[in-house]
Amino acid sequence: MPEILTLYSAKICPYAQRVEIALSEANAQFDRYEVDLRDKPEWYAPKVNPASKVPAVAYGGPKVPADEPSPSSTKIAESLVLLEFVADLYPDANILPKDPVLRAKARFFIDTVSNKYNPAYFAYIIRGEEGAREKLEKATEDIQALLPPEGFAIGEWSIADAAIAPFLGRLIVALENDFGGYPEGEGPVLLNDLRQNQKFTRFSKYLQDVTARRSFTDTFDKEHIRQVFASRLTRAAKTA
Amino acid sequence: MPEILTLYSAKICPYAQRVEIALSEANAQFDRYEVDLRDKPEWYAPKVNPASKVPAVAYGGPKVPADEPSPSSTKIAESLVLLEFVADLYPDANILPKDPVLRAKARFFIDTVSNKYNPAYFAYIIRGEEGAREKLEKATEDIQALLPPEGFAIGEWSIADAAIAPFLGRLIVALENDFGGYPEGEGPVLLNDLRQNQKFTRFSKYLQDVTARRSFTDTFDKEHIRQVFASRLTRAAKTA
Repeated sequence: MPEILTLYSAKICPYAQRVEIALSEANAQFDRYEVDLRDKPEWYAPKVNPASKVPAVAYGGPKVPADEPSPSSTKIAESLVLLEFVADLYPDANILPKDPVLRAKARFFIDTVSNKYNPAYFAYIIRGEEGAREKLEKATEDIQALLPPEGFAIGEWSIADAAIAPFLGRLIVALENDFGGYPEGEGPVLLNDLRQNQKFTRFSKYLQDVTARRSFTDTFDKEHIRQVFASRLTRAAKTA
Repeated sequence: MPEILTLYSAKICPYAQRVEIALSEANAQFDRYEVDLRDKPEWYAPKVNPASKVPAVAYGGPKVPADEPSPSSTKIAESLVLLEFVADLYPDANILPKDPVLRAKARFFIDTVSNKYNPAYFAYIIRGEEGAREKLEKATEDIQALLPPEGFAIGEWSIADAAIAPFLGRLIVALENDFGGYPEGEGPVLLNDLRQNQKFTRFSKYLQDVTARRSFTDTFDKEHIRQVFASRLTRAAKTA
């Protein structure tokens, strides 16, 4: 039986949502503490995560309030490390299959998210860099090329899907509201393209499936994210 | 029993050596094919790795010559994906322990190598960027802070050590020969500092242990690397 687990998270953070999705899929029992990223508690960095980021987990040790973390619990950070940790803690949940080849495919998919998809997402949505739309479309095609004909990233749902889903959910919120650093008016056009253009047919189905998954919708506060994006993802912010 | 495995590698490449180290620790049987990175065979990208990089593995399928890869083997790329793959294929080799917390520690160490140590290594050795020496010293301290009082990255040897060892080996070759983009004469001074300065005592012991490991020395062709570095890691190359 896994020991006591406390997740330090933040609703706005896609990295933190990755771990919430995995814990939801594993039916894990855990305490959740919402960290205010703009006003972090002073105990957070010294007692939980020296990098002062979410997500982080306190695992084991005595049962304590989340805001009084025990020195005797193990502190674990980094969302991808935590996805594997949840899969290891709950092997029967099968969020990472047992077959070595399928595990390698899940990890290669995650590598593509980290090294191709996410850099393109940030370049386009956050920074509105020149050429970033083409970069995002290319990364979308790279993701699409890895998808099997049906189902999720490696067929059955896995932590590979948890790795990308929070970014896809936030992509939809940004584009449908035209929030971001890219040229004004382009958001809804690109979203329509990702959903309707024949060259993205497989990706479009995946986008729909992955954001309809119960573990995703249960951990995605769309209205909160919309509000935060509305105040931060303005074109003025880009040039400020 | 694992199926037939062919590793596409290159002696100069630290990423490829990671996988060779893991296979050596697992006592794996495999075919090794040396890819000439400056003159890659034309079949390599279409038939093995579309990204045209090493390392890559062909796993399963019929027994075929390495230069005639079968379409029915699974092709797997990316060194960190392959480290996990070797650990999954050979669970009894214990190159990644079974305990979820220790596995998380190994993966967090690897994350620190990827996101802190290696960027500093490349900034200093290859590009000789301004401020890169301080960055490399800081990253060295970050690695050191993760090391337990004795032993390897998580105590017993693991794939975390395979992830960093090839870079440490190449660091030594570059510094002792004063090869690199950093200011002339600085290499041997920094190497001496890493080995003798009290602030690096624990790292220094680790540097020695990890590069003395049989799986490292068996897969590290120091003279070949010295020759390649001599021709490529010149200060003229930096400004060319």
